[in-house]
Amino acid sequence: MLRSSKGGVQNWLESEAEKEKKRKEEEEEEDEGLEGAQQMGLEAGAGGGGEAEPTSSDGERRGDEQRRSSAAAVVLALLLSSSSLLSLFLLYTMKEEIEKLWEEVRDLSLGTTTAGVERLHSPPTPLQFLRHFVSPNKPCLISNATLHWPATTLWSSSDAHLLRSLSSATVSLHLTPTGRADSLSPHPSIPSSLCFASASISSMPFPLALQSIYSSDLDSNFVAYAQQQNDCFRSEYSALAEDCESHIPWATEALGCFPEAVNLWIGNHLSETSFHKDHYENLYAVVTGEKHFLLLPPTDVHRMYIRNYPAAHYSYHKDTGEFKLELEDPVRYVPWCSVDPYPSPENKEREMSKFPLYFDGPKPFEVTVKAGEILYLPSMWFHHVRQSPDSRGRTIAVNYWYDMQFDIKYAYFNFLQSIPHPSSHGLTPHEMGFVGSSSDTSICYSGDEPDINAMERVKCD
Amino acid sequence: MLRSSKGGVQNWLESEAEKEKKRKEEEEEEDEGLEGAQQMGLEAGAGGGGEAEPTSSDGERRGDEQRRSSAAAVVLALLLSSSSLLSLFLLYTMKEEIEKLWEEVRDLSLGTTTAGVERLHSPPTPLQFLRHFVSPNKPCLISNATLHWPATTLWSSSDAHLLRSLSSATVSLHLTPTGRADSLSPHPSIPSSLCFASASISSMPFPLALQSIYSSDLDSNFVAYAQQQNDCFRSEYSALAEDCESHIPWATEALGCFPEAVNLWIGNHLSETSFHKDHYENLYAVVTGEKHFLLLPPTDVHRMYIRNYPAAHYSYHKDTGEFKLELEDPVRYVPWCSVDPYPSPENKEREMSKFPLYFDGPKPFEVTVKAGEILYLPSMWFHHVRQSPDSRGRTIAVNYWYDMQFDIKYAYFNFLQSIPHPSSHGLTPHEMGFVGSSSDTSICYSGDEPDINAMERVKCD
Repeated sequence: MLRSSKGGVQNWLESEAEKEKKRKEEEEEEDEGLEGAQQMGLEAGAGGGGEAEPTSSDGERRGDEQRRSSAAAVVLALLLSSSSLLSLFLLYTMKEEIEKLWEEVRDLSLGTTTAGVERLHSPPTPLQFLRHFVSPNKPCLISNATLHWPATTLWSSSDAHLLRSLSSATVSLHLTPTGRADSLSPHPSIPSSLCFASASISSMPFPLALQSIYSSDLDSNFVAYAQQQNDCFRSEYSALAEDCESHIPWATEALGCFPEAVNLWIGNHLSETSFHKDHYENLYAVVTGEKHFLLLPPTDVHRMYIRNYPAAHYSYHKDTGEFKLELEDPVRYVPWCSVDPYPSPENKEREMSKFPLYFDGPKPFEVTVKAGEILYLPSMWFHHVRQSPDSRGRTIAVNYWYDMQFDIKYAYFNFLQSIPHPSSHGLTPHEMGFVGSSSDTSICYSGDEPDINAMERVKCD
Repeated sequence: MLRSSKGGVQNWLESEAEKEKKRKEEEEEEDEGLEGAQQMGLEAGAGGGGEAEPTSSDGERRGDEQRRSSAAAVVLALLLSSSSLLSLFLLYTMKEEIEKLWEEVRDLSLGTTTAGVERLHSPPTPLQFLRHFVSPNKPCLISNATLHWPATTLWSSSDAHLLRSLSSATVSLHLTPTGRADSLSPHPSIPSSLCFASASISSMPFPLALQSIYSSDLDSNFVAYAQQQNDCFRSEYSALAEDCESHIPWATEALGCFPEAVNLWIGNHLSETSFHKDHYENLYAVVTGEKHFLLLPPTDVHRMYIRNYPAAHYSYHKDTGEFKLELEDPVRYVPWCSVDPYPSPENKEREMSKFPLYFDGPKPFEVTVKAGEILYLPSMWFHHVRQSPDSRGRTIAVNYWYDMQFDIKYAYFNFLQSIPHPSSHGLTPHEMGFVGSSSDTSICYSGDEPDINAMERVKCD
């Protein structure tokens, strides 16, 4: 009974059989044509946006290549009979896949190092900022971003305005013998080893702090940097509140919250910040002078050789004008990036052989932020910062830390970090058995897996 | 000379020495207090948004736990001396870390299955949609989303409007004996094995197509589903253009482009779509009837047991009213999810033991989309769809496919997929050596690593 109710359809289908067959053949021809066009990257874009995003065929192609090489790797696994070879195979797979990830994130989203960080000639709309930069975790440099701030003229022409506004302010000054605070230094009692050295912090009237910055000098082992990453612009420097915006309007609207902290930085060319990451979305505005950033995406975590280092602090002895570096007691370990991207000429060869994943891998993104510009430094990106002074010898910047979302990207990052890359974990090709006999394969972890997330507790710019 | 220029500072520092010491002690006490508060989750939120996002201390804590257990795992590695144990250790590490990822993405971002998919009682603003759902790759269900569409009344009360508007339209009808198109079926010549079966597609006048849907019946092995994922709403069904919006305005503004394809679906409770993912941001609007989705995030890819299956097609023989399933010649393999979340009672035990990562892991998110509601189904999410008909026996829906961004999330997904999970790759605990002697450890891949990205070429709802 039920089947007979389909009679009309069946009759129609029968009469249409020939037409259908012909149509199908034509469709197949068309499909082949379309597929060919897609393979040539000729897929038509969507109507409206005209954005330069990779088409899905790009994604497919890239995925296809990746899967094919994975398939080859799995076939290889079938050929491996001993556990020793299996270990090598697994280590090799992890190494290969981690290195593919470095490439893929650049190919698909970030672009090449030579093309550099994307530059916008005026601030983006909140939607553009969220869609093209925050969501894909991609940096950008924004010109003409802060020209309307009174600070742009008031702070750069002379010190008069700063000294007048802050005549009675007490500020935090970070003192080191080298300009490198929160960075690796020779261990005070084991010179062949390293520790994580923090600055000596002094609170003092702003005019004295500024005088100290001007008198900073490497020959006399004294470098001062006025900064404190505790929302200092809205506390110690609250007298300057009218000179800058209290938040970045388009970022606040995009991110749906006001900044968690706003920090002021006054230093000169002697201060340098070592590679690290922050768990914040960072809007970094330079008011005078220049900041030079090296940037690596979070996918490149193994290239930073994060290790645990014993925490140490400088103390400044006013009588001798000298610094003493002392370990914390009891010992506390800080996970920190091991790579110095600018080793001294005499150390260069050694550093390059110690950290091949950094020095031999894709170059970091280099970006110089000038007065009036804002860098969007996405959460979890590794960054190293140097600076050039203005004609008066100062670099002044304000940065805005917005809460990041701990979403699927963060979960993926933690997963990636948990997968060992042999070279990043102290396994040389020889130790992995790729060189010489495979029978001497050994695993050699360099110590406890670092608690990389603790890095944010020591906050830097 | 240079050092003497610091005289003022040094003098001041000396006179401030006592005060400073006291201040430092106080600061340390304060810091401890703050740290304690943070550990208790009492960290103050940012001023403006008041959003219920995890605080950075949540993220830290979660990361800390993860790192600690990683550290324990690495210490274990030092104790392992043989390559056999090393293989086991590496496999076990990968298994553990993949399973931690499933948990972490739920803890941090998605919420629990019991709490379910977030529901919005009216459409979000473009910024809210982008910030809270697209960027974190998180689904949501939006009520009161399409009540202003003429379709809401015109299509649901009777067939009159559809039949009148489409009286001369030719539409694509998908025919199967089971209601399962683009899903796994017994292999036509090796019944113990499976193939990937596609529907028989017929073009016919809309009135006949609708009649076929009404006459669908499992007892007579005939199920019809009017659909074609080639932008059919704007081509075959263009006569209905005025009844629905041509795009979803807040999604278009958020994503910065118009939909790549808009598809119409007319079927009933007999049609079911097997687990798969699409490389699109999907806005799924139900006009009449209900759709029942099971959703798994892309982090759970190993739980889908994606394997290559030989492609086959149904052909419908009008004279006998029967279907024939034939393999493509030459054979072509389609990577597809192996899991049927609703196995028949007689198969249930076998299916559960074959796919423990799915059946024993976190439950999928279940969401029912009713008339007037829109589901945001994020790109790369695995989804399984069933439907309930309205009082006239039909389920009608329109879905909008927007281009996704191939960004860092996509690169991370490809990386995750390349890391083997022993259970997902056909290694039983025994084969891994966790049960019985470790000397019989063997690796047993189930075939070529699937080209999962090819899945999108066979598009489903």
